[in-house]
Amino acid sequence: MIRHIVLFTWADDATDEQKATVAAELGKLPGVIPELRAYTVGPDAGINEGNHEFAVVADFDSVDDYLVYRDHPRHQAVIAEHIKPIVAARAAVQLSL
Amino acid sequence: MIRHIVLFTWADDATDEQKATVAAELGKLPGVIPELRAYTVGPDAGINEGNHEFAVVADFDSVDDYLVYRDHPRHQAVIAEHIKPIVAARAAVQLSL
Repeated sequence: MIRHIVLFTWADDATDEQKATVAAELGKLPGVIPELRAYTVGPDAGINEGNHEFAVVADFDSVDDYLVYRDHPRHQAVIAEHIKPIVAARAAVQLSL
Repeated sequence: MIRHIVLFTWADDATDEQKATVAAELGKLPGVIPELRAYTVGPDAGINEGNHEFAVVADFDSVDDYLVYRDHPRHQAVIAEHIKPIVAARAAVQLSL
């Protein structure tokens, strides 16, 4: 299994509507990318100080399936239209499990 | 469910043995902290450039269970003795699912 993890911090001038749109648009991807085996997406819960603001954890059966997701036009459109305009910091890891 | 996610980048002078010890010591925690429902720990798979080097994803039934893990002496000992000496960057989110 491949577990893809990415954390974002948003720009100071990002609006609540822009942040909510990222979650909503990513949430549509399991319906169009069947390679996604599990997908958890959402804002930080506010328990600790100093965290990033938003997380994506996506599970796949294989590296090839992860690459389908990574390079999928619908996913790339969400990145270009909704994430890149408001991202201030990004941290990612892919775990091989 | 609470999903705790943390990504690390290690210091340039961190040794392979030090990095492996972090994984090994964290891997012992499910045996001593029964609140851990699922625990995936390991190095980045090397698929993409620019990633952090190591990830922890820990699932709990509740915020209280996560706090038991966060503040557990055995976990704090791994942080103090094995992670802090070699960490260069850390990124974290807790997702409420």
